Amino acid sequence: MVQSQIMFEDRVKKLKEQIAKENLDAVLVSSVSNIEYLTGYSNFSIMEREAYIFIGKNFGYIITDGRYSEAIRTQVSHLKLFERGHTKKTADLFKKHKREIKNLGVEEDELTVSEHKELKKHFKNIKHFDAGSLRSIKTQEEINTIKKACEIGDLAFNFILKKIQSGITEKEIAQELENFIKEKGAIISFPSIVAFGKNSSVPHHQTGDKRLTINDKLILLDFGVKINGYCSDMTRTIFFGQVTLKHKKMCDIVLEAQKKAIQFINSGKNIKAKDVDKVAREYIKSKGFPDIPHSLGHGIGLEVHEHPSLSPKSKDILKEGMVFSIEPGIYIPDFGGVRIEDLFVLEKGVLRQITNSSKELFSV
Amino acid sequence: MVQSQIMFEDRVKKLKEQIAKENLDAVLVSSVSNIEYLTGYSNFSIMEREAYIFIGKNFGYIITDGRYSEAIRTQVSHLKLFERGHTKKTADLFKKHKREIKNLGVEEDELTVSEHKELKKHFKNIKHFDAGSLRSIKTQEEINTIKKACEIGDLAFNFILKKIQSGITEKEIAQELENFIKEKGAIISFPSIVAFGKNSSVPHHQTGDKRLTINDKLILLDFGVKINGYCSDMTRTIFFGQVTLKHKKMCDIVLEAQKKAIQFINSGKNIKAKDVDKVAREYIKSKGFPDIPHSLGHGIGLEVHEHPSLSPKSKDILKEGMVFSIEPGIYIPDFGGVRIEDLFVLEKGVLRQITNSSKELFSV
Repeated sequence: MVQSQIMFEDRVKKLKEQIAKENLDAVLVSSVSNIEYLTGYSNFSIMEREAYIFIGKNFGYIITDGRYSEAIRTQVSHLKLFERGHTKKTADLFKKHKREIKNLGVEEDELTVSEHKELKKHFKNIKHFDAGSLRSIKTQEEINTIKKACEIGDLAFNFILKKIQSGITEKEIAQELENFIKEKGAIISFPSIVAFGKNSSVPHHQTGDKRLTINDKLILLDFGVKINGYCSDMTRTIFFGQVTLKHKKMCDIVLEAQKKAIQFINSGKNIKAKDVDKVAREYIKSKGFPDIPHSLGHGIGLEVHEHPSLSPKSKDILKEGMVFSIEPGIYIPDFGGVRIEDLFVLEKGVLRQITNSSKELFSV
Repeated sequence: MVQSQIMFEDRVKKLKEQIAKENLDAVLVSSVSNIEYLTGYSNFSIMEREAYIFIGKNFGYIITDGRYSEAIRTQVSHLKLFERGHTKKTADLFKKHKREIKNLGVEEDELTVSEHKELKKHFKNIKHFDAGSLRSIKTQEEINTIKKACEIGDLAFNFILKKIQSGITEKEIAQELENFIKEKGAIISFPSIVAFGKNSSVPHHQTGDKRLTINDKLILLDFGVKINGYCSDMTRTIFFGQVTLKHKKMCDIVLEAQKKAIQFINSGKNIKAKDVDKVAREYIKSKGFPDIPHSLGHGIGLEVHEHPSLSPKSKDILKEGMVFSIEPGIYIPDFGGVRIEDLFVLEKGVLRQITNSSKELFSV
């Protein structure tokens, strides 16, 4: 068995420990990212349900169909393949194991109502199970991979600064970013957001055909890199042309809000994620600017957004080995928006920033 | 109001008619494609729930958060924006309308168990509602857009044939395809599948770093184009080098299976989709080859896979204006696979093929 198979086997073992801890007899894992985390196999569609992992005390299956069975046979050896098809139904597998399963765990956020109805035919007690939380604390290898993605992101940012000039469109910048990232052997982790001028006041602006002019003042770039399955994510807002005092003030306050959040995390142990969100949010409001219309930050790994969540409702506690973003922003309709986003890893009680592009809000 | 807004308003009107027909008082639409179909707005993430459409007899809302509200305000005028946030909850909106809603329709395939639990707090009778079926019959404008995507796909196929040579990798071909499609002002509708030799026996092979050699015999290309929101999808299998009689036989049978499916559809009216699947499937099996490990075909439009489904369990009836694929395949582990996929539109009782790349299985 190759090294990586041992790693995936170990993750399944940890999953089984969590199953036991939560008094469950088995779990059905349906999210593509969690399946990737437990197997290393990353080719299932996120648009359609093409696989499950079904784990009990004494069994472990990957359920998929004939389109994938040969790939799974060669690449996933620590789980038994159950190939569902026109004659062999997943229901048969459930029937086989239903006696030993009193309590089944499912990912309620990752399972549809239709799927749940099917499961109810076989299992009486179906409970929520948070398989994604396994991923929130990263190994050193995972952290190194995310750092690599961040490094490529930093290179891409430096590269794109040279391309910014009057007349270029948002889409052209996004394309240049993507080409650069691909040349480095990586891919984008999500469609890049490039917003000029007033477009920057829409936090998730749809990159379009707008051409850059000297009157735009602000350029917001939010993009990420994915390499070996792991994502980065970074936002920078750049001045373009003669900016007003208001623009500068917005930038100063956003940067200060990020600093305050960092200081707060460094000030103690077992910090509540929602309290970090509050520190930055309240600071921005105290300066007379509108509330941040999104969370302050999010964990990152195989997915761009995963545990922990730094948001007002979060129940997460920040722990060693977590990797997450801190991204305060101020958005003023019909004027413009400023967001600064960096990734951090919590190591030895201290937050270490792993995106390293300059935050000097220089004019290009 | 611009022309396109009238079109989207009309679609919401049709949705309301269907709601009434199914004795529902309101529906909550959660799938991103259906939201796009009803609004024209396509920037919501498919990874996370960022919006709903909530339609009743006397109201119509789009529910989203502050990240999108400015974009929705300017681009979607036929629905009322409900901006959910830290102080304003979706639950407030549900409370406001719960008295007039005895039966609520939801997309059970597109709603999570967690979301359903939340809805149950407000609504007693929650039923399945198939909002996607609205999309299965296309307007002439939609058909024309899909044809345009197919045309770019045909151009891309002709282009890529010239690039095929010993030593090139699967990924390089996929990249060339993607670049060509982008140069034509379109994007790929899904990650292209490029499979050399034995890799072609995995129907959804993950395009990799394998280099093409004269011993590979088969090259399977499955790719699609997306333009103005609409998708194409096509598969061709090409001979490379000296092929055996078995390879040729596989190709002949796959082509013949596709022909038989076409003839069957042209032979009558209101044909059942599952019967078309059966015709092709049984033919392949009758020739001693393995059963097709996937559906014979699928509808296509805003999504690569949508209604109707040409599969053994399908309840769909083929109707005028439907656009779908017919894609029989034979896959032999450790040997190779052959799949031929074309898109068709059912017009005036006759199936018209809209992907027009050659099916001659020439050696390159």
